[in-house]
Amino acid sequence: MERALSVAVVGAGYWGPNLARNFRSSPDWDLVAVCDLDEARARRVVGPRSTVDVMTSLTDVLARDDVDAIAIATPARTHAPIALAAIEAGKHVLVEKPVADTSATGRQMVARAEQAGLVLMVDHTFCYTPAVVKIRELIADGSLGDIHFVDSVRINLGLVQPDVNVFWDLAPHDLSILDFVLPGGLVPTGVAAQGADPLRTGQACVGYLTLPLADGAIAHVHVNWLSPTKIRQVVIGGSKRTLVWDDLSPQQRLTVHDRGVTLAGARGTDREATQVSYRLGDAWSPALPEKEALASMVAEFAASIREGRAPRTDGAAGLRVLDVLEASTVSLAHEGRLVRVTAGAGLEPVA
Amino acid sequence: MERALSVAVVGAGYWGPNLARNFRSSPDWDLVAVCDLDEARARRVVGPRSTVDVMTSLTDVLARDDVDAIAIATPARTHAPIALAAIEAGKHVLVEKPVADTSATGRQMVARAEQAGLVLMVDHTFCYTPAVVKIRELIADGSLGDIHFVDSVRINLGLVQPDVNVFWDLAPHDLSILDFVLPGGLVPTGVAAQGADPLRTGQACVGYLTLPLADGAIAHVHVNWLSPTKIRQVVIGGSKRTLVWDDLSPQQRLTVHDRGVTLAGARGTDREATQVSYRLGDAWSPALPEKEALASMVAEFAASIREGRAPRTDGAAGLRVLDVLEASTVSLAHEGRLVRVTAGAGLEPVA
Amino acid sequence: MERALSVAVVGAGYWGPNLARNFRSSPDWDLVAVCDLDEARARRVVGPRSTVDVMTSLTDVLARDDVDAIAIATPARTHAPIALAAIEAGKHVLVEKPVADTSATGRQMVARAEQAGLVLMVDHTFCYTPAVVKIRELIADGSLGDIHFVDSVRINLGLVQPDVNVFWDLAPHDLSILDFVLPGGLVPTGVAAQGADPLRTGQACVGYLTLPLADGAIAHVHVNWLSPTKIRQVVIGGSKRTLVWDDLSPQQRLTVHDRGVTLAGARGTDREATQVSYRLGDAWSPALPEKEALASMVAEFAASIREGRAPRTDGAAGLRVLDVLEASTVSLAHEGRLVRVTAGAGLEPVA
Amino acid sequence: MERALSVAVVGAGYWGPNLARNFRSSPDWDLVAVCDLDEARARRVVGPRSTVDVMTSLTDVLARDDVDAIAIATPARTHAPIALAAIEAGKHVLVEKPVADTSATGRQMVARAEQAGLVLMVDHTFCYTPAVVKIRELIADGSLGDIHFVDSVRINLGLVQPDVNVFWDLAPHDLSILDFVLPGGLVPTGVAAQGADPLRTGQACVGYLTLPLADGAIAHVHVNWLSPTKIRQVVIGGSKRTLVWDDLSPQQRLTVHDRGVTLAGARGTDREATQVSYRLGDAWSPALPEKEALASMVAEFAASIREGRAPRTDGAAGLRVLDVLEASTVSLAHEGRLVRVTAGAGLEPVA
Repeated sequence: MERALSVAVVGAGYWGPNLARNFRSSPDWDLVAVCDLDEARARRVVGPRSTVDVMTSLTDVLARDDVDAIAIATPARTHAPIALAAIEAGKHVLVEKPVADTSATGRQMVARAEQAGLVLMVDHTFCYTPAVVKIRELIADGSLGDIHFVDSVRINLGLVQPDVNVFWDLAPHDLSILDFVLPGGLVPTGVAAQGADPLRTGQACVGYLTLPLADGAIAHVHVNWLSPTKIRQVVIGGSKRTLVWDDLSPQQRLTVHDRGVTLAGARGTDREATQVSYRLGDAWSPALPEKEALASMVAEFAASIREGRAPRTDGAAGLRVLDVLEASTVSLAHEGRLVRVTAGAGLEPVA
Repeated sequence: MERALSVAVVGAGYWGPNLARNFRSSPDWDLVAVCDLDEARARRVVGPRSTVDVMTSLTDVLARDDVDAIAIATPARTHAPIALAAIEAGKHVLVEKPVADTSATGRQMVARAEQAGLVLMVDHTFCYTPAVVKIRELIADGSLGDIHFVDSVRINLGLVQPDVNVFWDLAPHDLSILDFVLPGGLVPTGVAAQGADPLRTGQACVGYLTLPLADGAIAHVHVNWLSPTKIRQVVIGGSKRTLVWDDLSPQQRLTVHDRGVTLAGARGTDREATQVSYRLGDAWSPALPEKEALASMVAEFAASIREGRAPRTDGAAGLRVLDVLEASTVSLAHEGRLVRVTAGAGLEPVA
Repeated sequence: MERALSVAVVGAGYWGPNLARNFRSSPDWDLVAVCDLDEARARRVVGPRSTVDVMTSLTDVLARDDVDAIAIATPARTHAPIALAAIEAGKHVLVEKPVADTSATGRQMVARAEQAGLVLMVDHTFCYTPAVVKIRELIADGSLGDIHFVDSVRINLGLVQPDVNVFWDLAPHDLSILDFVLPGGLVPTGVAAQGADPLRTGQACVGYLTLPLADGAIAHVHVNWLSPTKIRQVVIGGSKRTLVWDDLSPQQRLTVHDRGVTLAGARGTDREATQVSYRLGDAWSPALPEKEALASMVAEFAASIREGRAPRTDGAAGLRVLDVLEASTVSLAHEGRLVRVTAGAGLEPVA
Repeated sequence: MERALSVAVVGAGYWGPNLARNFRSSPDWDLVAVCDLDEARARRVVGPRSTVDVMTSLTDVLARDDVDAIAIATPARTHAPIALAAIEAGKHVLVEKPVADTSATGRQMVARAEQAGLVLMVDHTFCYTPAVVKIRELIADGSLGDIHFVDSVRINLGLVQPDVNVFWDLAPHDLSILDFVLPGGLVPTGVAAQGADPLRTGQACVGYLTLPLADGAIAHVHVNWLSPTKIRQVVIGGSKRTLVWDDLSPQQRLTVHDRGVTLAGARGTDREATQVSYRLGDAWSPALPEKEALASMVAEFAASIREGRAPRTDGAAGLRVLDVLEASTVSLAHEGRLVRVTAGAGLEPVA
């Protein structure tokens, strides 16, 4: 085994401790420091009887020769300045989702990392879960056929936040999954966003995202901070089979249904819908390995650095997600009208 | 007990047999005839060793003196002519949902019945289920507080139909429930509909309906003919409590969650969202009587006739549902743009 | 199609109406009469506008030439006298479970029917459900391998009865299923029954039945009248695969798990249990037709009469179930000691 | 806050790492060493960049002055020698379940700890879960009324072990829970055990334990290593209400049903069981705090040491569980006959 790469985690808030724990237990990594403006918070992440350093200055972290990479788990608006400084200092970068708070700064991060020959990876954690990896396989090998619709629900009591609406908080998960599993990635023909702020918090707390896809297909995402029951379910309907992923089911998280509707010839003219038939087939739940997604994610970060290649969830993937989020904001401001997404171009509602 | 009212069921297709069975076993009703152009189909509904008449002529049915009322379970486009003829003949009318295929003819039916002093009732079956009756009570007595959001999902493998899209086929259920439980009925400030037809059937098979409500609230309906798993779930979020209705759960169909998000004072400026707090309270499932909805529905039809009053689901309720369906068609034709609904007025997408 | 056979239902209590409804809608049968000492109860089963006869005298029913068969849905202690009289009168007999209230009278019924060349069928309804038929197939074709254990749970709030304990009320379902699906039928090497009567009703309301099977296998049945939640679940563990049948799950009632424990060679001596390995395979849910069990049951009754053969659930099956029930009563009286079951012989607890 | 107590974990196999992790993150404790004969295994528990000691000699651990307590997570047959040596060295002891492999050695441990004035605590982990703590409260405050039956199911694919059967491996969980929640602890009037070893491993892999309780009540435990589906469910039926605990349900783990059967007066003589009535009441799920049981458990260990009192799950509780386990072994050897349990006396099957 090669020597472990060394990493510092920047940000000891909600997600940082999870990153720290996984870097710590990974054979690929040596966690050398945890950095946060709040020293006590960083110290709690490091824990007792540990020689991992607690630091409060990002500059000091970036100045260290024994740091190969940094993992950024700070608020989205700080991603770009931290990442750009890290790239400047020659460090590989892992950044939480969303990759940045604007498409423009996100594109800058991707460009700089590419120029510097450094890895810029986005922590799209769900793309490292055994379930999502399996879904990608099942779509790629044709088991589902052509994709007809994707319906994704992610609702729970959530922390209403003053500077981020529910789309920017939760939808990156759904969008990054879609980007990962759909052949060709997430390239909707438009984005329509409907939101509500019944608590008058100043931000949408309930949100619906409609993404028309090529060939008449559609994706839809429901994100909600106000639901007392937790649901994380994705249904992916294909021309051959349909897949249901219930992420909270303790068993049988993934089920492939060999039943559906088949269009059997020309449209009839009678009210009796004779042109469709049903396949009432079996259901099947593939065995999934029990593996923590973050462990796979930090392994991929190390592998991409060592092999000098783009990681599975690279900056470009992060940008595709970011474009949809920005479009959702434009659509919200126009009563939910459909907004065309053209990479790198401005966003305009459909006339 | 008063003498039973006599009724004839018109239409022996999918729903007619259910109506016939419930009229037959009701102490309020005497089922005297089943009428269908297809005599064999009508005969199957009547069954062996029965003296219920099988008829093939609507004119003959309406000419009978011993028929007090007719129940119409034919395709939507035939509701108006049949109902108008029945009213002309002095019969009370029960009609399947949607009340008519256009708002104009629906309004005509309502007006004629009123002029003739006859009952015109719409079979919004779900409004007679113990669960929906309980939901209405819980909202009316303030248990949920102000309604913040309603999310309704009704998906299953369904019969793709050449002349009706998934909104017109399934959403009447959700809309009639909303109309029944919301204080003031279903009066959205607009309607936006997103649909997809990935099978190229000529009709939307997957549909999403967004209904902004007063005071920042929102209702959303997901209807889908292509899902291999059957889901019928409604979440109603209120300022005090949130209700989840899972119509397919064999037990505990209705759960009231005494948990949620509370806005506690002024918005903070910090990223930490200090202005909201959580109530992590208990959940509660009220006992529901085991009672078939259609039995209650035919009882209400009889009671409204005897008492000379409007039934629980009258023509006006049917029109409110119809207005939203018509608006969804306009929205669909304009890439999902929000359409204002003004009763009796034309529908226009928001400029 | 041959002419329909004619049948009279005797007993209009809890189950009789279900039999009547299914005979009525079956193309194989003509329901000519419903008989009950309580005329009003019988009349309610027949319903209005019907020419099916209401009768109160069993003698009159049996005297009719136009009755080919009778279906007995009366209390268990009356099964034998009614069935014997019917056989005497040359009628085929369908009888509710358990076939009789004692093994001796049950054997008499079987013998007389055989002598008279008449069909004696037991209404083991579950053996006609698509799920149980499928389970039998999966065991018969070797999909599960050798059967290692069967665990059956059937609990719900039930009507505590003064003359029947929970074993005699509920376990016939589980035992008839076991008899139907196990190769060779239900022939346990012993029966141990543990019961409790915490309400002091005079009858066990909670019961556990242990049935050691050949080759070290075991079956266990939990029946309970006092449970507020309804559970009907059977797990059948085999050497190749394990099957779970959740009869109340709205979807995926039957799941076959291709995972389990494999004994891989000689036993180790170390505490580390190196001799076993796990197969963490996929799960699979076969599609099941939607078909009412009672409809299949009455069809089988007709077919066995027409073809002059034993029905799927014949008197012998009823006797195997009855033997276990009698053994349970002996075991209960001896603090749950194991009782040997030898068909036709007396039952004795193991010394 | 007082200074943290120092502890060493002995045994770095399956459970030791969980203990180590919780001692490490507890403000009450300072984890100073992890001890295992297999040094590499202990080192993996300690992890990188840590100053926690890795030790391979128990003698050396016990000789340290800076160790206040040890936590024993080794095989059951080694509990007694390790615990006795630790008590000899003046250390407080936390020991995994079962407290010992024989009742005799278990009693010796309890006696020695008492003489030395040291805490001997058994890690009955489930007694520290929020659900079990709530169940104890609901029984203690009379919410359930008198306890009528307890049905506990704990089944899953499990590691078949050469020296421990499924009763000794899994039932300690159920028994310790019963001991904790039942008023007066676990004092059954007898123990009957039915087991099966269909794989011919030399040990029962499927087990059923029946425990008659005072006043006609009954407890029953189903433990099973061969089930492909994981079930952990406890139903506790009381005279007032019934509680269902589904430990694997992601939401609503605990439900209290206000429905059941009520005995209303004298027994009737008619088959119609008129003497019982039903309460079809509501269900209620109390909110449970999200708290890791092991964190509460190590806190209780510290508190009992500091306050010089018996811990919540003391040695006596461990002995009550052990007595039932020993009785199960005797019953198994006598074809499942009921065995009387008298603390400290020999066990004999009922004549």
